[in-house]
Amino acid sequence: MNFLEERIVKDGVVKEGNVLKVDSFLNHQMDIGLLDQMGAEFKRRFADKPINKILTIEASGIGIACVAAQHFNVPVVFAKKSQSINLDGDMYVAEVESFTHKCINHVIVGQKFLTPDDHVLIIDDFLANGCALQGLIQIVQSAGATVEGIGIAIEKGFQSGGRIIRNLGYQLESLAIVDGMNAETGEIRFREQPVSTNGSLPDGEVCRSSTLD
Amino acid sequence: MNFLEERIVKDGVVKEGNVLKVDSFLNHQMDIGLLDQMGAEFKRRFADKPINKILTIEASGIGIACVAAQHFNVPVVFAKKSQSINLDGDMYVAEVESFTHKCINHVIVGQKFLTPDDHVLIIDDFLANGCALQGLIQIVQSAGATVEGIGIAIEKGFQSGGRIIRNLGYQLESLAIVDGMNAETGEIRFREQPVSTNGSLPDGEVCRSSTLD
Repeated sequence: MNFLEERIVKDGVVKEGNVLKVDSFLNHQMDIGLLDQMGAEFKRRFADKPINKILTIEASGIGIACVAAQHFNVPVVFAKKSQSINLDGDMYVAEVESFTHKCINHVIVGQKFLTPDDHVLIIDDFLANGCALQGLIQIVQSAGATVEGIGIAIEKGFQSGGRIIRNLGYQLESLAIVDGMNAETGEIRFREQPVSTNGSLPDGEVCRSSTLD
Repeated sequence: MNFLEERIVKDGVVKEGNVLKVDSFLNHQMDIGLLDQMGAEFKRRFADKPINKILTIEASGIGIACVAAQHFNVPVVFAKKSQSINLDGDMYVAEVESFTHKCINHVIVGQKFLTPDDHVLIIDDFLANGCALQGLIQIVQSAGATVEGIGIAIEKGFQSGGRIIRNLGYQLESLAIVDGMNAETGEIRFREQPVSTNGSLPDGEVCRSSTLD
């Protein structure tokens, strides 16, 4: 298990309905040391990419993105989420349908903050069905910018988001992929991933195929 | 002018209706190096306080709080904002009336993340009328925790929030206090503050009284 998987086992709580609560260290209270470790690991996994901007989405992606950005030395842009659109200036807007909440959300980024010169790493805390992520990718493409990769803290491997994104050819790196959970026993089953070793990294392709299902 | 005031003059945009847009470096796109400087300055101003937790509010406070937290070596908790309340577990809820938007908002923090042992630094990007801030203070008090101080990036000194908070006796440190703006000329007038010098700091009391109006 890597450092994030260990922390999930230690402090995560499995609830009925495939809910994994990580609000004591990741998305309500945030352990900044852990975020820093995650940032270093994202940097390792995307070391060969010419990333000049990190894009995330409010609210819980922002902390992870900002701490990771220190490892890349790049600015962060966070997309806003809104059920209504109140356009102030020129905005990129992606309409995304939430599978979970059965509603339409808008993902919004100011046009001046994404240009064709941008090489973007998208970062978020969770990936399940990937609706928000699809909206972010759509926006990067609308801007003529390049998605260099996607870094996720926790992927729910039993939902479709990760598979879709990998099928589309993106380098998606999820630090922990949960393949199954049991609310009664509290057990969490992780997909096997290459162990991060000091310095000697498996190349990107190895990472990617080993996380394909 | 300090580093933040200089940046506001360089990249901030004054709009009609006393609106100051800082979305290119602070609350939509975020300059992480600037956030780091802000974190160091907050640490300097609250050096003598036994802070063990930073509390902020979604969304744009989160980035500032997370980068600042690295200077304090403490976790961050971010409060959620919601117009409706959907209580999941035990939450502290403060009802705050928005002066600007003429609506009721709820500021929500999980009870397990604030205890009487907590010595809290509240951080946010903007202070104008201070409704959100009042909600955060109310929640810290509900938890029996201690507000050790409040760190703000930009205070609108011509609105009442800052005065109220200082009148209540809190150590409120705003890195830039805007006392006036002119949308036609783009001019921004800052309240004079003690210059941050390397190592030799003015003590807390001097900071505070010099920003009283």
